[in-house]
Amino acid sequence: MSETVASVAGTARGAGASGASARSAAFAGRRCVVTGGMGFIGSNLALELAGAGARVRVVDAMVPGHGGNPHNLDGATGSIDVTVADVGDDARVAPVVADAEFVFNLAGQISHLDSMEDPLTDFDLNARSHLSFLETLRRLSSPAVVVYTSTRQIYGRPRRLPVDETHPIEPVDVNGISQHAAEQLHLLYARVYGMRACSLRLTNVYGPRLRLADSRQGVLGVFLRLALDGETLRLYGDGSQLRDFLHVDDVVDALLAAALEPGATGEAFNVSHDEVLSLRAAAEEIVAATGSGRVELVPWPRDREAIDIGDFVGDSAKARRVLGWAPRVGFADGVRSTVTFYRGRRAWYL
Amino acid sequence: MSETVASVAGTARGAGASGASARSAAFAGRRCVVTGGMGFIGSNLALELAGAGARVRVVDAMVPGHGGNPHNLDGATGSIDVTVADVGDDARVAPVVADAEFVFNLAGQISHLDSMEDPLTDFDLNARSHLSFLETLRRLSSPAVVVYTSTRQIYGRPRRLPVDETHPIEPVDVNGISQHAAEQLHLLYARVYGMRACSLRLTNVYGPRLRLADSRQGVLGVFLRLALDGETLRLYGDGSQLRDFLHVDDVVDALLAAALEPGATGEAFNVSHDEVLSLRAAAEEIVAATGSGRVELVPWPRDREAIDIGDFVGDSAKARRVLGWAPRVGFADGVRSTVTFYRGRRAWYL
Repeated sequence: MSETVASVAGTARGAGASGASARSAAFAGRRCVVTGGMGFIGSNLALELAGAGARVRVVDAMVPGHGGNPHNLDGATGSIDVTVADVGDDARVAPVVADAEFVFNLAGQISHLDSMEDPLTDFDLNARSHLSFLETLRRLSSPAVVVYTSTRQIYGRPRRLPVDETHPIEPVDVNGISQHAAEQLHLLYARVYGMRACSLRLTNVYGPRLRLADSRQGVLGVFLRLALDGETLRLYGDGSQLRDFLHVDDVVDALLAAALEPGATGEAFNVSHDEVLSLRAAAEEIVAATGSGRVELVPWPRDREAIDIGDFVGDSAKARRVLGWAPRVGFADGVRSTVTFYRGRRAWYL
Repeated sequence: MSETVASVAGTARGAGASGASARSAAFAGRRCVVTGGMGFIGSNLALELAGAGARVRVVDAMVPGHGGNPHNLDGATGSIDVTVADVGDDARVAPVVADAEFVFNLAGQISHLDSMEDPLTDFDLNARSHLSFLETLRRLSSPAVVVYTSTRQIYGRPRRLPVDETHPIEPVDVNGISQHAAEQLHLLYARVYGMRACSLRLTNVYGPRLRLADSRQGVLGVFLRLALDGETLRLYGDGSQLRDFLHVDDVVDALLAAALEPGATGEAFNVSHDEVLSLRAAAEEIVAATGSGRVELVPWPRDREAIDIGDFVGDSAKARRVLGWAPRVGFADGVRSTVTFYRGRRAWYL
């Protein structure tokens, strides 16, 4: 890991900072750590917290290809301290989290193909480092609330729809196994040590600061880039697989809701949208929002088909009930504002 | 890891070699690898296979306290090659497994308290090393059947009884999380790469070669030692928690059945007994079989109560149906023959 410790400051609210959550006012003056805070979701969260007057520290390993982007904190309101380190690096991370009141633990990589090509790296970063991080917090007797972000990928190919939190865990890639292990470790530390930890199982997330260069953060990033460039969005098969897509503002709101709700401790929550679309419909919406590009259906590549999960529809009733959270951004609106964000910033995300 | 490579040979069937399985004849002349083969279950399996004329190679890290015991292969019939290495040590392990037809992957440690005191070591040995081992097999394009041993601990505190394979996964310790990750990795490699891997989720196992020194391999080892020494067997609470106990001969039989059944690939199976006893009844049976010792009830220590799971009764209907396996050794008979084994060998297991 590099030794860089930077401080990012700005005087004006960044265009595209999420601004999603009325809950953020509760974090004014509070000491918050966002791991993975230079990445897609982490940076949106860090900007929201800083905008609300929180004292924000970001820890990010800045591993190439994993989503950390130096432009992601551009335009921050208030100061955000940045430490470049893996969350498993106890010596570097302990001073950052020592006095934290809230830890949003978003570090990791989520690329399914990367996890199959280099499974040990995926397992080290997404599972082992998180166990080390939990040990750091335990050693410090940290009283912080810890919100970990997991993924709907842990369920694998759904056996029933919609998928609630009791659905069997059958990941279709190493990434899903790594993230499930990390999630279970957080919940274990809550049960055994009284750590105020919970986990959000995120569905497909899109919005400002999503990586456009490739599909490492999901297919929508590539679709957005292709549409912005007036190129062809290729869908495997007939593109009829169902998905729910969640705007990052809604995810930030869920993260804040989980951090503020004592009843979340020790629990895992699906965080998904009740607006369900086919991949084809989503692609067509993106083409419509950008006014460029086109959709084409192509046969399945073998390596993709092996890990495809068919339709996925999440059930987030538990999050609605316990966290008092609900998604507020519809896909058409969310895509339009996302396209607006990328106009003029496209080059930073390639 | 030490560089030791030893060869163990004997001319007579070892007393206490499991002799449990009519299935073992199918392994005559076959190339078999047993990881963790110096340990409790692994050595019983290795002796059974060697006795049946299989060509047996054992890989064992011989980590102090983890069950590997130099006396465990005493009295082997036929030769058993032993390589002292961690399964994650690709350079040392690859030559051993290169031409294997059957890999019984039993390496690891199962102590719950150790996994909480040193979670990173547990995670490295029980999860990360197994991912590395699977990568070794994949790189070699190994056609071997791989049988991994998991544990009923992955279910945690039962939400319903009996516990079948669809029960939620909620481990109460790091060991359960590590072993679940390793199991899921095996099943993933079966699904994605066509590896002929399956997993057996073992209940509480007892029998010859169980560690007596401490409760790292379960409470029965300590109970056997205390009874043999004429001391007091202490039970927490009222000792009424239900468990099923499986004799190691039945486990060896299940391992062989899983290796021989093509329909096992990609599946996880509970391997448990339908004879359910309270811990108190089990302790009293041990005292009766040894003719010494006594049972006493004591209050729960706090660190134990935090990870106690209450009653556990497994449902092994799937193993019976798919593997054609069923337990054959009752607890009273199993304890009597186990006590006979330890008379005169007690010192080796302390």
